Amino acid sequence: MRIDNAFTDAAPAQVLSDEQIAREENLVSEVIASFAGGGSERDRELINGLVRHLHSYIREVRLTEEEWSTAIGFLTRAGHITTDTRQEFILLSDVLGASMQTIAVNNEAVGDATEATVFGPFFVENAPEIAIGGDISGGAAGEACWVEGSVKDTAGNPLPGARIEVWEADEEGFYDVQYNDGRTAARAHLHADADGNYAFWALTPTPYPIPHDGPVGQLLERFDRSPVRTSHLHFMVSAPETRTLVTHIFVDGCEYLDKDSVFGVKESLIKDFISQPAGTPAPDGRDLEGKPWKRVAFDIVLPPA
Amino acid sequence: MRIDNAFTDAAPAQVLSDEQIAREENLVSEVIASFAGGGSERDRELINGLVRHLHSYIREVRLTEEEWSTAIGFLTRAGHITTDTRQEFILLSDVLGASMQTIAVNNEAVGDATEATVFGPFFVENAPEIAIGGDISGGAAGEACWVEGSVKDTAGNPLPGARIEVWEADEEGFYDVQYNDGRTAARAHLHADADGNYAFWALTPTPYPIPHDGPVGQLLERFDRSPVRTSHLHFMVSAPETRTLVTHIFVDGCEYLDKDSVFGVKESLIKDFISQPAGTPAPDGRDLEGKPWKRVAFDIVLPPA
Repeated sequence: MRIDNAFTDAAPAQVLSDEQIAREENLVSEVIASFAGGGSERDRELINGLVRHLHSYIREVRLTEEEWSTAIGFLTRAGHITTDTRQEFILLSDVLGASMQTIAVNNEAVGDATEATVFGPFFVENAPEIAIGGDISGGAAGEACWVEGSVKDTAGNPLPGARIEVWEADEEGFYDVQYNDGRTAARAHLHADADGNYAFWALTPTPYPIPHDGPVGQLLERFDRSPVRTSHLHFMVSAPETRTLVTHIFVDGCEYLDKDSVFGVKESLIKDFISQPAGTPAPDGRDLEGKPWKRVAFDIVLPPA
Repeated sequence: MRIDNAFTDAAPAQVLSDEQIAREENLVSEVIASFAGGGSERDRELINGLVRHLHSYIREVRLTEEEWSTAIGFLTRAGHITTDTRQEFILLSDVLGASMQTIAVNNEAVGDATEATVFGPFFVENAPEIAIGGDISGGAAGEACWVEGSVKDTAGNPLPGARIEVWEADEEGFYDVQYNDGRTAARAHLHADADGNYAFWALTPTPYPIPHDGPVGQLLERFDRSPVRTSHLHFMVSAPETRTLVTHIFVDGCEYLDKDSVFGVKESLIKDFISQPAGTPAPDGRDLEGKPWKRVAFDIVLPPA
C-alpha cells in the first residue's frame, strides 16, 4: 500500500492496493513497449514522453469514465469548429500556455537578448515596405503612435539594415485579414538604417478578444477567464548571423496586462507608451491635426544564430 | 545550472541557464494561477494536472515549433475525420492505452473479482434475449463455440438471474452494426439460472483491425504497430448490489494476443477455447452438421457495488 499522491496538490490521497498499482504500471510499460519497434529515436522520445505523462495524469487525478467522455467530446467539438480560417486547437494550445512554453523552449535566454513571445495567427508574408519614419497604418483607425529604437547583437554591435516586420489590430480590435474586403492595413516592414536605428508611425495598440464562441471560449468561461489579449504590437526582426526574433511590445498600464489570455506578456516587453498632449510637435514634423498621440522606445537585441 | 533530464529516458541532457529555467517555471505558475478563479474544486484539479503535465512534456522533450505544428495538424485531421459513426479521438485514446488506463483506474482490483477491459464502440442496447443454451449468432458466419460458466460475488455466493450481455464480430471481423443493412447478429443477452450458472452458443472469436485509414492508422504505421484487435468476446455482466463488469475473454493462442492494438488483454482473461473435432457430441445435443466446434469456460466474479 502507498499514498499515490506525489504530484497533484489538490488530489485526495488515494490508497491503492499493490495489485492495483501493478496493473496500472504494467499497462504503461506495455504501451511504451508497443512503440519500441518503429519510428526514429526522436519519434520514440516524443511518443514515450506523451504516453508517460498521459497515463500519469489519468492515474493521479483518477479520471472518471464520464470525465474521459467529456474530454473526447471537447476534442470532437474543437475538431468540428476548426476550418482553414479558424484553428481551435491552436487556441487551446494558446490558452493552456502550451504555445508560449514551446516558444520559451525554442528561444533560450541568451545574455540580454530581447525575449520572444507568441507569433499569433495574423502575420502575413510580403507586407508593404515603408521607409524609416513611414506609417504602417494604411488607413486603419486608431491613435497615432511613434515607435523608435535600435537593433543590436548581444555584443552591442548595431545591425544595420536589419529587417523589421510589424503588425497589429486596429482600434476596433481587428486585424486587416479579419475583414473580408482584402484590405492591407496596420502592417508593414522596414529596414534599420546604417547605425541600426529605426522609427515608424503605427497605432497605439488596443486590447481584443481571441475567438471565444467555441469550446475554448466555454473553457475560459468555466474558469472565469477573460478571452482578451492585452494591447500589443507584433515584431519579427531578422539580420544576418542572428536568430530571428518573434515578439510583441505591450502597453504599460493596460488593464489586461496581468491576464493576457495566451500568456504572451513578459515583464521585459512591457513598454511605456508616453502620452503626448494635443499640439505636441511630432519628431518628424508630421501634422497630427491637433490630436493627442503617443510615443514608445523599443531597443531590440538579437542573439547569435 | 542543472541537468533538466529527470524524466524522459531517451532525452539528451539539456543544460539550461537559471534564467531559462525561471522563465519556463514562471510560465507554468502563471497558467495555473489563471485557472484559480473559477470552476469547481474538481475542475481545477483536472485542469491543473493537465497544465502541469503538458508543460512538463514540452520542457522535457524540448518540443520544437515544427513538432508542435505536427501535433496541431494531427488533431485537426482527427477532428475532421470524426463523424457520428467514426470516432478518431477514441481510437487515439485506445491506441495510447489511455482508454484502458481509465478503465483500470475506475475498476480497482477487489479480491478475486474478474478484471475489466475496454468497452469498445460496438455495444448496442436492447439486444435480443436468449434462453440459457440459446445461440447469439443470429445467422452471423463463424465456427460454433459453446460458452459456459458461473456468476458469483467476491464472497463466493452465486448470483442467480445475473444479466449477461454478450457481443462479438463475425468471422469476417465485422460487427452487425458495421453492415449497413440493419441486421442484428452475434449479440444477445441472457440471465444466469437459479444457481448462477449460464451457457450459450456463440462464434469462435477472430481478430480484426480497428479503423486505420486515418491519422491514428498513420501513427500506428509509423511505429510498425498492428491495428489488429486480438480475438475476443465481449461481456457486460450485472446483478443487484454488485459493480457492473465490462470485460472480454480472449482466445489463448491467437497470434495477436501480445499486440492487441488497444491494450485490452489481461492474463486472467485469456481462456482456452478447446477444439472439438468434427463429430464430437455437443453438450446440449445440438446437431453441428459434422463440423468442428470449440468450447470455453468463463467463471465470472463481480465485486461489491
